[in-house]
Amino acid sequence: MSHPSLTQPVVDLLQQIHADIATINSGDVASYIPELAKANPDWFGICLVTATGAVYEVGDTALPFTIQSISKPFVYGMALEDNGRPEVLQKVGVEPTGDVFNSISLEAGTGRPRNPMINAGAIATTGMIAGKTPQSKFRRMLETFNAYAGRELVLDGTIYGSENETGHRNRAIGHMLRNFEILTVDPIPVVDLYFKQCSIEVTCRDLGIMAATLANRGINPVTGKQAIRAEYVGSVLSVMESCGTYDFAGEWIYHVGLPAKSGVAGGIIAVLPGQLGIGVFSPPLDERGNSVRGIRVCQELSRSLDLHQLSRVSMGRVTIRTKLTAAEFNSGRARTQEEQKLLREHGGLIQIYQLQGHLAFSTTETVVRDIIDHASAIKHLILDFKRVVTLNECACHLLQLVVEKLVALGGTVSFVHSQQLPLLRRYLKAKLSAQVEASFRQPEDIDSALEKCEDELLASVSSGPGAALVSTELKFELFDGLSPDEVAIITSCLQRRSYAKGAVIINAGDEARELFFLAEGHVSVLVKLPSGSRKRLATFTAGMAFGEMAVIDHAPRSAMIVADDAVTCNLLMLEDLEKIGIQHPSIKIKLLENLCLSLCRKLRKANRELSLLE
Amino acid sequence: MSHPSLTQPVVDLLQQIHADIATINSGDVASYIPELAKANPDWFGICLVTATGAVYEVGDTALPFTIQSISKPFVYGMALEDNGRPEVLQKVGVEPTGDVFNSISLEAGTGRPRNPMINAGAIATTGMIAGKTPQSKFRRMLETFNAYAGRELVLDGTIYGSENETGHRNRAIGHMLRNFEILTVDPIPVVDLYFKQCSIEVTCRDLGIMAATLANRGINPVTGKQAIRAEYVGSVLSVMESCGTYDFAGEWIYHVGLPAKSGVAGGIIAVLPGQLGIGVFSPPLDERGNSVRGIRVCQELSRSLDLHQLSRVSMGRVTIRTKLTAAEFNSGRARTQEEQKLLREHGGLIQIYQLQGHLAFSTTETVVRDIIDHASAIKHLILDFKRVVTLNECACHLLQLVVEKLVALGGTVSFVHSQQLPLLRRYLKAKLSAQVEASFRQPEDIDSALEKCEDELLASVSSGPGAALVSTELKFELFDGLSPDEVAIITSCLQRRSYAKGAVIINAGDEARELFFLAEGHVSVLVKLPSGSRKRLATFTAGMAFGEMAVIDHAPRSAMIVADDAVTCNLLMLEDLEKIGIQHPSIKIKLLENLCLSLCRKLRKANRELSLLE
Repeated sequence: MSHPSLTQPVVDLLQQIHADIATINSGDVASYIPELAKANPDWFGICLVTATGAVYEVGDTALPFTIQSISKPFVYGMALEDNGRPEVLQKVGVEPTGDVFNSISLEAGTGRPRNPMINAGAIATTGMIAGKTPQSKFRRMLETFNAYAGRELVLDGTIYGSENETGHRNRAIGHMLRNFEILTVDPIPVVDLYFKQCSIEVTCRDLGIMAATLANRGINPVTGKQAIRAEYVGSVLSVMESCGTYDFAGEWIYHVGLPAKSGVAGGIIAVLPGQLGIGVFSPPLDERGNSVRGIRVCQELSRSLDLHQLSRVSMGRVTIRTKLTAAEFNSGRARTQEEQKLLREHGGLIQIYQLQGHLAFSTTETVVRDIIDHASAIKHLILDFKRVVTLNECACHLLQLVVEKLVALGGTVSFVHSQQLPLLRRYLKAKLSAQVEASFRQPEDIDSALEKCEDELLASVSSGPGAALVSTELKFELFDGLSPDEVAIITSCLQRRSYAKGAVIINAGDEARELFFLAEGHVSVLVKLPSGSRKRLATFTAGMAFGEMAVIDHAPRSAMIVADDAVTCNLLMLEDLEKIGIQHPSIKIKLLENLCLSLCRKLRKANRELSLLE
Repeated sequence: MSHPSLTQPVVDLLQQIHADIATINSGDVASYIPELAKANPDWFGICLVTATGAVYEVGDTALPFTIQSISKPFVYGMALEDNGRPEVLQKVGVEPTGDVFNSISLEAGTGRPRNPMINAGAIATTGMIAGKTPQSKFRRMLETFNAYAGRELVLDGTIYGSENETGHRNRAIGHMLRNFEILTVDPIPVVDLYFKQCSIEVTCRDLGIMAATLANRGINPVTGKQAIRAEYVGSVLSVMESCGTYDFAGEWIYHVGLPAKSGVAGGIIAVLPGQLGIGVFSPPLDERGNSVRGIRVCQELSRSLDLHQLSRVSMGRVTIRTKLTAAEFNSGRARTQEEQKLLREHGGLIQIYQLQGHLAFSTTETVVRDIIDHASAIKHLILDFKRVVTLNECACHLLQLVVEKLVALGGTVSFVHSQQLPLLRRYLKAKLSAQVEASFRQPEDIDSALEKCEDELLASVSSGPGAALVSTELKFELFDGLSPDEVAIITSCLQRRSYAKGAVIINAGDEARELFFLAEGHVSVLVKLPSGSRKRLATFTAGMAFGEMAVIDHAPRSAMIVADDAVTCNLLMLEDLEKIGIQHPSIKIKLLENLCLSLCRKLRKANRELSLLE
């Protein structure tokens, strides 16, 4: 659908930044191995990927280069998955050193590397990857990297060969780690695996997607595949935050405010948790070994897109989408005039909250506080989770406490559309006590939740026991104002018809040839949703008429009507209505006036509800 | 309204944590001055304050104690405001030292303290507070602290006296800073001011509110008063993040993940930007000088409430509240059958996005991407900002690009309810070119925006020029199916009445005594909102009838009807309608049938719109 000449505005922004920063020519390409020195200093790509999976690229985003030290946080995540957090922390610390990248920085006495971002800590981390053979370890590593990048990556054999040839310092580190028993096996294959992990080929686009996978709690937002368990993502980002830029960490937090990691081939990644990942590629490095343009891009993106993680606006107020009560918003169950009046008077005791977005502590707290503040005025609470995107365990806990408190006060609580939130259902099933469960419901939709609460409210406030039901003779609302003789004339035209429970009385698309007077039982008006499921629009009870709209505008029936129980209807055929109009015009006038009145009431209700929801 | 026996669920959670951690009895109360040694090791309070201003307290939250080192980040913020960021960074760095709290850690050569959280950096920072005299500097300091805490704080004179007496090391630091010209004035009054800032008395509740003020971009969420400019909050939190816990910073980021600062009297603050602040008070300290229980509370809150700042879920998807087109959702302008048909066919070219929440880069990007992806199918774009809470400059920029791109394609763009977002209006006024402005509108409400787009769409798609308007004779929809003779009978009963532009034709609350046939001009149906402003519900044009609902149900008029231009109406009085019913029942039957039809159409439209919004 996109217009061919149209670029995305985010691409425009990135192009501007790319053009500005391309003019910076300082820094030198890494040269400690000849293959890296061959890089063209003009190569320059930027890729921004959102946690919702949008990929924005400008410049040289498809050129391959080696991942180098950017591999360290990803391998640290694998070590956490393979060994658990306590075991990993025992062998590698998480404190910044204030030193340069290749400092050995082992803790006095224990020999524990200070953190996993310096080479010593990274080699110790690589030594913790699960696998029986060096080959299987590397295979697992590559598979994980593939999941992060969303494509099959390969090893750059030439770079790997050179790294291996010149890697004496890293082999020395390996032996030192063996000496302190941080490594408990032959260190040489571990260092070799470390050289391999650094020699995996990626593109700038890959880096953007890998960073976005960390931003998206470990799920690659483009492929939807999980690369790392969510519980370890915070730990990976933490070591990037505190140690990812070596002795530059404080400045980086101050000026950029995004966890980041750079590599000696000119790559750099930065992550804004929950929002986006950034990959940059530009080979010339500063004296600290970081890509000169890469750092400038991160600084500029942080500034111009306002991405600093510590500079956030309050986000608590948007969780409550709407707040309604049954005094103004009702179920599709058609009610008598008397019942409508009672609902207008007492409906405030039924409180509906429609929630939306992500339920974590802060967002849930605003809802919970509001409910508890008004608890003495709530008899029936309905929470609608239809538009809730995610929720965490803390939110479940707060909601559990709300249920318990309201039930203890004698109220009922209904959670609607909670079937899409299995964590919530499991949590409540495990935690709610048996006596609470009797007053706690999880109906499928807001309408049935509301109907049940309305029924209970009406039963508790109506003047006598079942007062509305004991009228000895059935009166149709459409017969209001007609004399007994006039009613008899209509009645003589009616055709009686019975339906079993579940029978279809009207099908959508049917031609409209009759008006139905419901004499016994209940009927529901249903429509088919695009999803294929059925949604109830309204329910009618004895004394009401239905099917009048299609009769009036001669359109085909727009909805299906089904018998909820054993149903008896009296049908007034269209031709009989015509006849009555000719023979007894005053009767038809009264019928039409009553019909107008009924439509009028429905329209007023619909308009009132529209103004509440708009 | 709150029920007396009801505690807030968040208080329940805090009480549980308080009870668990109260059992920890390790650590020693600070004793380097006798007044601090008098603290009761059992004192223990926790206060959590949300960025929306909810205050939750348990335990000893009202006991006064001295703020000590927790003053450092707040004074750093004042130095930034008084001197600007470059000047401050020149005198004090932002790199962690990896050393303990009272290390001197000056940079070799320059003598610049490594960061503002160690004593040397804090004293240098205090030296940058604006003010002519030591007294006026302290007054400004106290006023700022008062704004953070939301009440008048006082100095603890005894503690101040003892600090002053024993503060030789800090005086040594002062002279060293003077030696390197980091301080360019007599260091003794600066060190004295530093002792005073450390001796300000706060409570645990104060700390919670001060932390929440940092979480809320510098605005105290309880009082609404600004304590620090928003642009500097990120910098204050950055130094807390990287340097706030001295040589414990890496562990803290890893395990707690909230910028924090502790004081030697047993206080501690932690901040989750955009969401909440935490204050804890418990005097026993560990060997690093941090409150033992305070640290445990932060760890436990971070874990159980899932507050780690780097462990966030994606939050992009909730910005679009609803997406509608004019094929299914229309303005209140009543349309002819032909116009309604054209709108159903072509209304997809008018696209409405209702936005909500906070518009920053990530949240705006999802909207912008969706619009550009569908741009070739959009002729008229309407963005409704009614439920947008905040927006930043980056969001303005992206929206500006959208306007320019759509206008370049020949479309129109309307921003509705943008009057509540002055930044957006200023930004667009400054940046949009003159040729774009002609196709860019900022109407007051969605209804008038939609009406104008519908008018333009109808003009562009209707078969002939003004085809709908050239009917030589006015036909009332309610007269459909009546013979000319029957129309003449009704017409003879009608009373002609004219209204000037702006005249009130019907007032809300009036008794309903007539039905209006609109012969010339336009009328609007208005309701008064609780805010006092008027909202248009519908507009009618010549050939339509209005005022029928109150006539039918005999309720008082529910809305006001006003002449939009010179208006002529033909009034059918209720008693005349009665007479027609008696003398010419077939006419009344046709009138009522047409009325039913009109109500039916309105009800179908309202139900359709309800299902879209629900």
